[in-house]
Amino acid sequence: MWQAEILTLFPAMVTGYLEASILGKARARGLLRVEPRDIREHAEGKHRVTDDAPYGGGAGMVMKPEPLVAAIEAARVALPGARVLLTSPRGERFTQGMARDVATGPTDLILVAGRYEGVDERVRAYVDAEISLGDFVLTGGELAALCIVDAVARLLPGVLGNAESSGSESFEGGLLEYPHYTRPAEFRGVSVPDVLQGGDHARIARWRRWHQLRLTLARRPDLLDSEGLSAEDRRLLALEEKDL
Amino acid sequence: MWQAEILTLFPAMVTGYLEASILGKARARGLLRVEPRDIREHAEGKHRVTDDAPYGGGAGMVMKPEPLVAAIEAARVALPGARVLLTSPRGERFTQGMARDVATGPTDLILVAGRYEGVDERVRAYVDAEISLGDFVLTGGELAALCIVDAVARLLPGVLGNAESSGSESFEGGLLEYPHYTRPAEFRGVSVPDVLQGGDHARIARWRRWHQLRLTLARRPDLLDSEGLSAEDRRLLALEEKDL
Repeated sequence: MWQAEILTLFPAMVTGYLEASILGKARARGLLRVEPRDIREHAEGKHRVTDDAPYGGGAGMVMKPEPLVAAIEAARVALPGARVLLTSPRGERFTQGMARDVATGPTDLILVAGRYEGVDERVRAYVDAEISLGDFVLTGGELAALCIVDAVARLLPGVLGNAESSGSESFEGGLLEYPHYTRPAEFRGVSVPDVLQGGDHARIARWRRWHQLRLTLARRPDLLDSEGLSAEDRRLLALEEKDL
Repeated sequence: MWQAEILTLFPAMVTGYLEASILGKARARGLLRVEPRDIREHAEGKHRVTDDAPYGGGAGMVMKPEPLVAAIEAARVALPGARVLLTSPRGERFTQGMARDVATGPTDLILVAGRYEGVDERVRAYVDAEISLGDFVLTGGELAALCIVDAVARLLPGVLGNAESSGSESFEGGLLEYPHYTRPAEFRGVSVPDVLQGGDHARIARWRRWHQLRLTLARRPDLLDSEGLSAEDRRLLALEEKDL
């Protein structure tokens, strides 16, 4: 069973999400175990101080190394063999490929959610990697940790029900996903494309592939760079939508 | 006051985070208003159905257009002038620059969290833009919506307290942030760099800038591409750390 711990100063920030919907159901069914670990419980002294002013001056507080490293070490005892990831805007960008690698291992994760101005630099010697969601700054790493957990969890066997299971989705096969339609056949004057309402499955597959290619070329040509297009895809792209 | 609504089938997924820590405090102090809106309450019929099988076949369910568009329209009445963003892996990448634009407007947001296999394509005519956190797939858009709210909220006046307020942070000025240190001066045999323990503020500023430049060049040279480096930064980079 895949396991993860989220090390945080504010467990309440993550428990609501972990208990709701798909993740909550999967945890209740014993398909995975994800729990927060309160960093403050690893802080010493009466006041359990977890942050202090930065050396060298400047605004904001810095997370002290002792409670964080103590929490990491306790989590490593609980999850031997786990990979320790520190969420940080300085880290490597999280991708679907990483989510798949973690899920197929499966590799247990210890996710450290930084807060305040940042964490003491010396903590980095106790983590395996720094990881970032993207080029934006959050109040803390809790949401980044939840995104990582969520992206991994949905790839684990049995977690997604029929409603959510995904035949074709963005980034699988290096393409964005095709347009989806459901009932009603007409909504405020706009109809579901005829091809999808017919029963010609080869034509439906062509229509979907054509839209994936068009959309990816228009919005994310970088996704196509590494592989290029097959001869068949190039022929498909040359067609007009009505000729598919 | 900045306002946002998160349109979701699972309000419980976002309420925990919205009530905790910084966002919770800021909402309680009336600095912003962020609320979930339950899409299911905008679905009609006894069973309030919000999803159905995809036209053209395939796994998974698709979110029906009527409840989603009804929820968007109700949110637009509540927040006239708001920008409607659909979270989607097909969308434009969310960045710190977007967060800053929204916060400085300020521009109210209506964030639509998709679920299941996707949303009916016809919903896209009722949103202003599609937005993505990155190249990974989540069980739904709730975490993406929360990331956007969080990144915007912390830029609003008064939201960050002294502990969190950030003098220098990643992506401001196009660079990753410098290393932070706090007490103790020695942690498990590793000391805080001497320069930060001294009182030479010009030297501390050089040391921090040097580390920002080195780190950004090593990990994210793409952030430097657009501006290039000033002559002063190039001189600084040519120095060894001990000579700063």
